[in-house]
Amino acid sequence: MTRTVLSSATRETIIGFDEPFVMIGERINPTGRKLLAAEMKVGDYSRVEADTLAQVAAGAQMLDVNAGIPLADEPKILAEVIQLVQSITDVPLCIDSSIIAALEAGLKVYQGKALVNSTTAEDEVMEQVLPLVKKYGAAVVAISNDDTGISEDPDERFEVAKKIVERAQDHGIKPCDVVVDPLVMPIGAINSAGRDVFHLIRRLRNELKVNTTCGASNIGFGLPNRHAINNAFLPMLAASGMTSAILNPMHEGLVPSIKAADVLTGVDRSCAYWIKTFREPVAEGEGRGGRRGRRRRA
Amino acid sequence: MTRTVLSSATRETIIGFDEPFVMIGERINPTGRKLLAAEMKVGDYSRVEADTLAQVAAGAQMLDVNAGIPLADEPKILAEVIQLVQSITDVPLCIDSSIIAALEAGLKVYQGKALVNSTTAEDEVMEQVLPLVKKYGAAVVAISNDDTGISEDPDERFEVAKKIVERAQDHGIKPCDVVVDPLVMPIGAINSAGRDVFHLIRRLRNELKVNTTCGASNIGFGLPNRHAINNAFLPMLAASGMTSAILNPMHEGLVPSIKAADVLTGVDRSCAYWIKTFREPVAEGEGRGGRRGRRRRA
Repeated sequence: MTRTVLSSATRETIIGFDEPFVMIGERINPTGRKLLAAEMKVGDYSRVEADTLAQVAAGAQMLDVNAGIPLADEPKILAEVIQLVQSITDVPLCIDSSIIAALEAGLKVYQGKALVNSTTAEDEVMEQVLPLVKKYGAAVVAISNDDTGISEDPDERFEVAKKIVERAQDHGIKPCDVVVDPLVMPIGAINSAGRDVFHLIRRLRNELKVNTTCGASNIGFGLPNRHAINNAFLPMLAASGMTSAILNPMHEGLVPSIKAADVLTGVDRSCAYWIKTFREPVAEGEGRGGRRGRRRRA
Repeated sequence: MTRTVLSSATRETIIGFDEPFVMIGERINPTGRKLLAAEMKVGDYSRVEADTLAQVAAGAQMLDVNAGIPLADEPKILAEVIQLVQSITDVPLCIDSSIIAALEAGLKVYQGKALVNSTTAEDEVMEQVLPLVKKYGAAVVAISNDDTGISEDPDERFEVAKKIVERAQDHGIKPCDVVVDPLVMPIGAINSAGRDVFHLIRRLRNELKVNTTCGASNIGFGLPNRHAINNAFLPMLAASGMTSAILNPMHEGLVPSIKAADVLTGVDRSCAYWIKTFREPVAEGEGRGGRRGRRRRA
């Protein structure tokens, strides 16, 4: 049973085959959020604070932190944001940047064991990211593309992921500290995108025995009623063996659908979390066996 | 690509590996519905009519018809109800009884190719049901239990299903006309019930190459917020390869979750059905590229 143990100074989150699905909040990311980008650039992190608290309240067990703002001092901003976020929540973080200096600046100030987002299978990228991951005792997201781009063949993407896991081992990083992102394409563009990813996740879990994650929100790009697509997609990913995803826990219906998937994959043992969360309150003046209460439960 | 072609006098519904998930409406069934049972017993089929129209309007591509009322003339009632239902809708039917005489009475009056619900792997049952299925050119639901009961081991249930498929072939019924019910246990009682059924469905599809169905509503028995469990369960079944289910299409959120699953498994080709159903109407006075319309779609 593969387990990737992430931590803050005081709390652990485990991504694992036998653990509840880990929701990594995606909101602290200026990409496509002009207002947030402008604020972060001048050191105004009030919206970052609000997004932190709201995502954790919604159920996120980890948060992704990205400070990719054009022409800004990304290493400085990323380090500041990480320190701020860690000062107001204890969930472990995913340090998200395509700039090596920013990843290192983030890792330097991070308290606990972080998840580094990400390396690809490109040699140049692996040889910069993996030593950092090892140096700071972190775990890493492995994106299954290489110098040739993203293959449409899921079995080729499997081989690319395998290459990263093997290279990580060369750097002293255990396979359980590599979380593979199989890459989710928009279903509106590629009709087999769902089937492909379900197949790939099963292979990654059964053969490579690694944890998996993905940016879950892209699947419905361009389609109407995207939330309904997402709310069905996450349980389907979980049924295929995926163990975490980067998503917006504030989207209506998404957290209950993931918690229902936890019940159905059996990781919510004895349905304890589900029953605690959704059992109906006993109306005043009624006993536990009260008729109305029982009927409504049926 | 396995296809089970069912029909009424004028319409086909195909349960198939490459077809939209088939929702078989479960409502025309007096089990646990005292009022309906009492009405059906005295030949009042007004509620049957209402349930027929409502389920088809909600999206059911087939309807299950059951007339199992204690101390009633089940063959007579079943035949009457089938004739009535066929007179007001053209969706194919699933003729549901544990009484052989009732199945035969139903098949006699049925127009088209019906799905007979069901046989188990018990010799006595198979030897009565399968000749009827062959005689009337029907298809059959195969429930994966035998004289020893229901095994908790999904691989044993696979062997039981295989036995029925083989026996059906002995009776001249092709494997594509056997739709296997892997049996869904309540997740509140058996923690591995979901995982077991996902595993079994994959084996039934990949190895035995048969279509599958199940009574989907049992999974959340005894749990609070059952509908949310069901709305996640159906996409998970579809991701595992299930091709139909007997369910209540009027449950809130269930049909959209199944239609989203059709998008994600790729059987809703080019997302055509989804886009047609959920695209936002263009507001009056706005062009297709109108700013508000575009922003709301983002």
